[in-house]
Amino acid sequence: MPRVTIFGTGLIGASIGLRLHRSAGGADLEIVGSDSFRDHAKAAERAGAIDLAEPDPRRAVEGASLVVLATPILAMRELLEEMAPALAEGAIVTDTGSTKAEVLRWARQWLPPTVSFVGGHPMAGKTETGPDAADATLFEGARWAIVPTREAAGDAVEVVSGLARMMGAQPMFMDAAEHDAYVAAISHLPHLVATALFRLTRDSEAWPELSTLAAGGFRDTTRLAGTDATMAHDIAITNRAQIAHWLGRYREQLRVLQEQLEDTTDEGALFRVLSESSFEYDAFRGGAVGRREIDEQMYEQIPEVAMMDMLLSPTMMERARELLKRQEERLNDAERRARGDRG
Amino acid sequence: MPRVTIFGTGLIGASIGLRLHRSAGGADLEIVGSDSFRDHAKAAERAGAIDLAEPDPRRAVEGASLVVLATPILAMRELLEEMAPALAEGAIVTDTGSTKAEVLRWARQWLPPTVSFVGGHPMAGKTETGPDAADATLFEGARWAIVPTREAAGDAVEVVSGLARMMGAQPMFMDAAEHDAYVAAISHLPHLVATALFRLTRDSEAWPELSTLAAGGFRDTTRLAGTDATMAHDIAITNRAQIAHWLGRYREQLRVLQEQLEDTTDEGALFRVLSESSFEYDAFRGGAVGRREIDEQMYEQIPEVAMMDMLLSPTMMERARELLKRQEERLNDAERRARGDRG
Repeated sequence: MPRVTIFGTGLIGASIGLRLHRSAGGADLEIVGSDSFRDHAKAAERAGAIDLAEPDPRRAVEGASLVVLATPILAMRELLEEMAPALAEGAIVTDTGSTKAEVLRWARQWLPPTVSFVGGHPMAGKTETGPDAADATLFEGARWAIVPTREAAGDAVEVVSGLARMMGAQPMFMDAAEHDAYVAAISHLPHLVATALFRLTRDSEAWPELSTLAAGGFRDTTRLAGTDATMAHDIAITNRAQIAHWLGRYREQLRVLQEQLEDTTDEGALFRVLSESSFEYDAFRGGAVGRREIDEQMYEQIPEVAMMDMLLSPTMMERARELLKRQEERLNDAERRARGDRG
Repeated sequence: MPRVTIFGTGLIGASIGLRLHRSAGGADLEIVGSDSFRDHAKAAERAGAIDLAEPDPRRAVEGASLVVLATPILAMRELLEEMAPALAEGAIVTDTGSTKAEVLRWARQWLPPTVSFVGGHPMAGKTETGPDAADATLFEGARWAIVPTREAAGDAVEVVSGLARMMGAQPMFMDAAEHDAYVAAISHLPHLVATALFRLTRDSEAWPELSTLAAGGFRDTTRLAGTDATMAHDIAITNRAQIAHWLGRYREQLRVLQEQLEDTTDEGALFRVLSESSFEYDAFRGGAVGRREIDEQMYEQIPEVAMMDMLLSPTMMERARELLKRQEERLNDAERRARGDRG
């Protein structure tokens, strides 16, 4: 009977197990779950995500043709070292970690040449964590980054991208450096952006009032501050250079935005930034993502490269009139005050 | 028949109209809607949010006992000036704008002494805008800031807080300076935080890949970048000093976070920040907001002030062990490389 071993039976690991069972249908498949928290493994077993809980890593991988690491990243290093001697010849190992360069380095360091490692990273998640939040449809429609080692056998890459498809996800192939740079920008940086915003307001003396007034916008912007700290810290220290790079660029972006905010001589500049952002964001939310898709969805409808200027100009005109009126009002106020002083 | 006039029949104005009609039940009440976009007023009329569309501001307020300004902020100045001579004696005027100091200044400047102005700001909204997104339950459970002018009659304050309660919201009284400082922190700053993050990634050459990989976390953190630009710009230029203050503090918070991220000599410091944030964020999401509520929900359950240290210490111990192991591994690697160089 084919055997799959999942290390880490939290949200991701247990969701993979649930979906595997569902996809296998009546076919024989044994899923072994291994978790350093015994309660997690028990809960995953109760939920039907795994057939068998086995805390000992070597015993857990015995006879497994596919091993999935779904633990926090730093725990993977140790697991790879410990399980290596017990892996079956031809076994395939993959993971679901949020950074790839270090994980691939560990895999190369510890796994025997008879075993293939193909990294993976499902771009999905939710606020709730743990096996009780597991959901067979969690990966439906998501992208699943596939990052093979150079040494991985071709059929191993096939198996791991097949796993991603079986989960309802769409595989996207890339190398470890690309992957780590991309996720630094769209996942790790947003986590720090949210954490800094939450810390700033949470540490304020006005927090009782701020927390009472805070509505959906604040909650959405800060949501990632609730990310599990161990997971987030593992990410930070295994992708430090890339995150620091993007964080530096983000701080520069904020500096420029602050200049535009404080520039009372050209209020139109800030409006232009806000208009473009709001316009482009609506396109993004509407599904204009990727290169091919942007081509199809946007450029076919709007042949002009200067479309933005075209669309913005009536709004810009109206705004220019409003700002002019505002400036006149200020001048009038100043004149009135000046006359009052003399009177 | 009592008459209420609503200026601006977008999401907020039309939602107020819908709820007013529902709350009035069979009682006689005429709601007049006025919008510079005639399509908006028409749509609000079709949706049952208003009884009558009247584009001319003076005719719209004739005989109205309550006037609600739900337009972008800069448009309010002009409306106040224009409607002033046509307002009935004893009429009450309120608004729903996101900043208060300038709006109150305009009200004092233009409204006759026989009319009371009481500022208002419902802390609710959603991604969709316009009258078609109107929802009678939009304000259910939300806070509604009430900011009276010093000159407002006591019964006018009663009427406006009664309106907030009728919307299903909870009134919160404060002065204009407090209001503008609070919303700068929990609403206007998050909008700039989201806009800068979206701009940075959107302007990147890797945007096709980034937008394809981006999942729920990125979408939530950047959601406010889609805010209507006119609304956001009006907010920025009528609350500039407060927003600039909070933006400066936010940039300083990021600077410190970057230092902690890049400090390889004390990896525990970053973990501590992430742990505290995640822990406190869970409490916030769980409903620990405000002074009284924090008292009731947290301190009663956890008598020790040092609760955080208590709760974090086992996690901290485990993490310390992991980081030590990581450091040893690095030293071993370095030794191996040194031996290799000599060999």
